[in-house]
Amino acid sequence: MTNINLPQPFTARQPPSIVALAGGVGGAKLADGLAQILPPKALTIIVNTGDDFVHWGLNISPDLDTVCYTLAGLANPITGWGRMNETWNVFEQMERLGAETWFRLGDSDLATHLERTRRLRDGEPLSSITRDFCARWGIRHAILPMSDDPVATMVDTIEHGELPFQEYFVHQRCEPTVKGFRFEGVEKARPAPGVVEALRAADAVVFCPSNPWVSIDPILRIISHLLAKEAPGVRVAVSPIIGGQTVKGPAAKMFRELGIEPSALAVAKHYGESVLTGFILDEIDAEWMEDVRALGIHPFSTSTLMKSPEDRRSLARDVLHFIERLV
Amino acid sequence: MTNINLPQPFTARQPPSIVALAGGVGGAKLADGLAQILPPKALTIIVNTGDDFVHWGLNISPDLDTVCYTLAGLANPITGWGRMNETWNVFEQMERLGAETWFRLGDSDLATHLERTRRLRDGEPLSSITRDFCARWGIRHAILPMSDDPVATMVDTIEHGELPFQEYFVHQRCEPTVKGFRFEGVEKARPAPGVVEALRAADAVVFCPSNPWVSIDPILRIISHLLAKEAPGVRVAVSPIIGGQTVKGPAAKMFRELGIEPSALAVAKHYGESVLTGFILDEIDAEWMEDVRALGIHPFSTSTLMKSPEDRRSLARDVLHFIERLV
Repeated sequence: MTNINLPQPFTARQPPSIVALAGGVGGAKLADGLAQILPPKALTIIVNTGDDFVHWGLNISPDLDTVCYTLAGLANPITGWGRMNETWNVFEQMERLGAETWFRLGDSDLATHLERTRRLRDGEPLSSITRDFCARWGIRHAILPMSDDPVATMVDTIEHGELPFQEYFVHQRCEPTVKGFRFEGVEKARPAPGVVEALRAADAVVFCPSNPWVSIDPILRIISHLLAKEAPGVRVAVSPIIGGQTVKGPAAKMFRELGIEPSALAVAKHYGESVLTGFILDEIDAEWMEDVRALGIHPFSTSTLMKSPEDRRSLARDVLHFIERLV
Repeated sequence: MTNINLPQPFTARQPPSIVALAGGVGGAKLADGLAQILPPKALTIIVNTGDDFVHWGLNISPDLDTVCYTLAGLANPITGWGRMNETWNVFEQMERLGAETWFRLGDSDLATHLERTRRLRDGEPLSSITRDFCARWGIRHAILPMSDDPVATMVDTIEHGELPFQEYFVHQRCEPTVKGFRFEGVEKARPAPGVVEALRAADAVVFCPSNPWVSIDPILRIISHLLAKEAPGVRVAVSPIIGGQTVKGPAAKMFRELGIEPSALAVAKHYGESVLTGFILDEIDAEWMEDVRALGIHPFSTSTLMKSPEDRRSLARDVLHFIERLV
């Protein structure tokens, strides 16, 4: 059996309270699906900030912005990140002035970084700024940065040694061979306000289909002690690897370079049975179901590719159904 | 005689070397006229930076930008400041995020402030950044900020006490009644690199038709000791007041509020004969010629209203002819 058909539809009952852990595009899509079907108080999205960096003197939080733009309906539907109907007038003039151009910032997007930077410099925490931006963008569900303290994901590479994440990801287009990762500042970083409370109140934690190495792991490093003490026992991950490949981003390449055959099973193993109770893989990866079960993790397979808003809702519904079985 | 007709046209001989002192729009127009007829090495423009301020966390130099945009052919021909073909996408999003909106920054213009701010934070002096921007904008004449050190023009008002210049000028739309001015930091501010050398090499100093109180005075405070020791003896001011009014800006209102009837004569008196050797007033103010002469300053009248690029060239040519008579 690869799917569960619950006799009573989930929507007819009290929805479970969910904490979703998310990185960029893939994570944002499932978070959006969950937000489409869960009431605001039943969903808190905790977002990776290890990718945050300073560019053009501005504090940029790529994953946080992607999740916010996606939930606000402002995201570029083609790329999955950045803003829809974006213009590039500032960028063109910055290019003329000799500014760095390897990271493209659109005009609408730039306002986010400008205003965030100004408020951070004024001493306001990232979580507070994000809460206010969300309210102004009409987002009703809680989106929290994993921490208000800076954490910098460093990618250790064979060719160039350690690279800051965006340098590896955007500037070097994920080409260098990965040896490992380091999350600078993670030891001192405290969970952002609201994270502990959300985990305490949740029925389940959902690991969105984001990169395990550089999107979910930084969050886990921040909340691992909470997962042990405060979080609900149900933790379900959705595999970002489908048929041995990632829909987007370097996760599969990273597994391979670290000597692990990229697969849904590899993702389940990466998190492990001490962290996960359930694991959702794509229908085309159903072959791994028994291997996942053998790890001591409940497997569930469904269509996980999210091409349309309806796909997001559908996967979110499957995730909630699966969780209800595990609670 | 209100005009000088030199037997040999100026352009046939070696051009005089000029230092022009300029504020915003009016100053930029004459500076542009001078740049249209003088070769690059014969003109240095020293620009007021007392209006500089921080907005949205960005370092903004309104007069410097107006002069640069004007000489680069990038200025908005309608307003005289800001950029032509400007878009306002960042501004619209900033508004949505609750940022201050009393000072409008266009997208193309914003790039200037963003890149300048980044480089200032990196420790590069304003004069060096300006030199590089000018090269990238195709400006061949030297444009120098009066100083690399911060100077803040404060407007003392009856209604609100002391206001930072842009607060008075833009936010309060010049409505408060002026009691006086203070140039914070001017005592410690050193002339920017190039200012001393330009004054030493010049045949004449031209005071562009900018606001005497808040555009030219701050520059004079910085270079007054150089005017006494290093600068050429010929100093010619062009009246920003025509027929008792200013073409743009609050200069006439300021004179009035300080108890002085605004007129070309009032401008000549403001600078005084210890500073000026020559004074150019508009044809419609020819009535003041003898009064200016009585101050010990050579008067010259011509059409000073600059509506077209040709008007700028024409006034610049008149200024140079007048200077040649005084040298």
